[in-house]
Amino acid sequence: MSKLVIVGTVAFDTIATPFGKTDKILGGAAIFIGLAASQFDIDGAIVSVVGGDFPKEYIKMLQNKGLDVTGLDIVESGKTFFWSGKYHNDMNTRDTLVTELNVLADFKPKVPEFYKDAEVVMLGNLHPMVQLSVIEQIPVRPKLVVLDTMNFWMDNALKELLQVIAKVDVITINDEEARQLTGEYSLVVAAKKIMTMGPKYVVIKKGEHGALLFYDDEVFYAPALPLEVVFDPTGAGDTFAGGFTGYITKTKDYSYENLKKAIIYGSTLASFCVEKFGTERMLEITEKEIHQRLRQFKSLTQFDIELI
Amino acid sequence: MSKLVIVGTVAFDTIATPFGKTDKILGGAAIFIGLAASQFDIDGAIVSVVGGDFPKEYIKMLQNKGLDVTGLDIVESGKTFFWSGKYHNDMNTRDTLVTELNVLADFKPKVPEFYKDAEVVMLGNLHPMVQLSVIEQIPVRPKLVVLDTMNFWMDNALKELLQVIAKVDVITINDEEARQLTGEYSLVVAAKKIMTMGPKYVVIKKGEHGALLFYDDEVFYAPALPLEVVFDPTGAGDTFAGGFTGYITKTKDYSYENLKKAIIYGSTLASFCVEKFGTERMLEITEKEIHQRLRQFKSLTQFDIELI
Repeated sequence: MSKLVIVGTVAFDTIATPFGKTDKILGGAAIFIGLAASQFDIDGAIVSVVGGDFPKEYIKMLQNKGLDVTGLDIVESGKTFFWSGKYHNDMNTRDTLVTELNVLADFKPKVPEFYKDAEVVMLGNLHPMVQLSVIEQIPVRPKLVVLDTMNFWMDNALKELLQVIAKVDVITINDEEARQLTGEYSLVVAAKKIMTMGPKYVVIKKGEHGALLFYDDEVFYAPALPLEVVFDPTGAGDTFAGGFTGYITKTKDYSYENLKKAIIYGSTLASFCVEKFGTERMLEITEKEIHQRLRQFKSLTQFDIELI
Repeated sequence: MSKLVIVGTVAFDTIATPFGKTDKILGGAAIFIGLAASQFDIDGAIVSVVGGDFPKEYIKMLQNKGLDVTGLDIVESGKTFFWSGKYHNDMNTRDTLVTELNVLADFKPKVPEFYKDAEVVMLGNLHPMVQLSVIEQIPVRPKLVVLDTMNFWMDNALKELLQVIAKVDVITINDEEARQLTGEYSLVVAAKKIMTMGPKYVVIKKGEHGALLFYDDEVFYAPALPLEVVFDPTGAGDTFAGGFTGYITKTKDYSYENLKKAIIYGSTLASFCVEKFGTERMLEITEKEIHQRLRQFKSLTQFDIELI
């Protein structure tokens, strides 16, 4: 089986939406990426850090999903990263109420030996220097390195971020961030500028409006599935990234044609993530449900116009 | 050939965008709808009103495009409807600087005799009572009546608007308006509520994020083509409606499957409209260009995942 290295946060989240609020629940980019990627027949490893307060049953759950956790550092004397947020009524914007870095402040990722020849590396949103150290630990260039980042690093560590961007094959970024990074309003122009910074592929995420995949002069669009209820958007972007990289890892095909399919798988899995709080929905989905939803994606987007 | 009746404003517009500003140029919903619909082999008629200041060469231009103008009332003593607007930097929002109704204030639409058995009626954005009077002038129920409206009528003539909505087959409306009309945030739920008000099909326009077509429990999505430059969005929604109804009129097929294709044609034509000021781009497009862009739409959205 192909190998996927997933680097990112593991967190406790408390989330408030118009539908209610949670206690401290499992969250973090690496968790959402991992759970989505674990839907595919691959060897996936989570590289992250937690504190002594992190429940053993969560670790067991990850292992039951087939995820390798030898790269999950447990700092017994420390506390797990904590994030608390509150969504506005439109569910598209949120306020961060609390961010406690805790053990994440001194996180030094260590890629397990067995994963040093991974085909695919997914760098979840973290300090660019942490992301860079992962790339540097892998002696043979992976087939595909995918980077997720956010505006916070553009504001606070742009130089380092540009260094990482120069070394990756795919960047996933939201529309506002693409504009901020390039100073270009048009996403087409922004994507082209980002390609000159390093990545061959640029994925621009537009939340409820779907995602765009840019490659050379090509562009592919995956809508978000229109849903009756968006219950909690937390983790949707990471779930998208996990479905995207999980599918690519399984298929070992790094072509534009295959990345299109990977984008559809990413959107499909993200459409489940938002249906319940946190990781709840991701823990219960079945293969049958995924295929039902892929069918919905097909009927959502496929049309039959004969071209002359 | 099948017949399409187009009711809507004919206007002078002055438009300011970050790229520049115009003198008084040709505009209005009926103009954009008509120019888009005239790309198809149909009998199309514009029902509207202008003042004595309306240049004869514009009327000649409409005729040259194959549009019937016997329903275009010319009030020699009056002035043509005038609108002036200024777009913000993001091109998604605009301020209306001036609205002078002029001859539009007393507009009594008259459907030409030859068009009283039209297969398709496109009711462009106007006072709901004006739209209703068009429906009432047509003795045999058309195959398809399509309604465009906006939040202004929801605020100022909701009762009359609901009367019209009850009589049409398709409504086109933007996302915020769908939410306002129904009090529902989810577009899926909003569309279902609107269907209970009358229309069998609901088209929700999301500007640069494309358009959704709802029918029964089905949903189809047409993205907007990602463009390097959006020069002037004025008329894009009307151009979409014109491409949509023009295609349906030509094909005489009122099924959901065919309406999907019509949505793609609408989006395709709208993607040209925004490339230059006002109607400029619409006056020069060729069939070859349209087919090139349809091809782009296919490669933008079509993927090939085998479903089990």
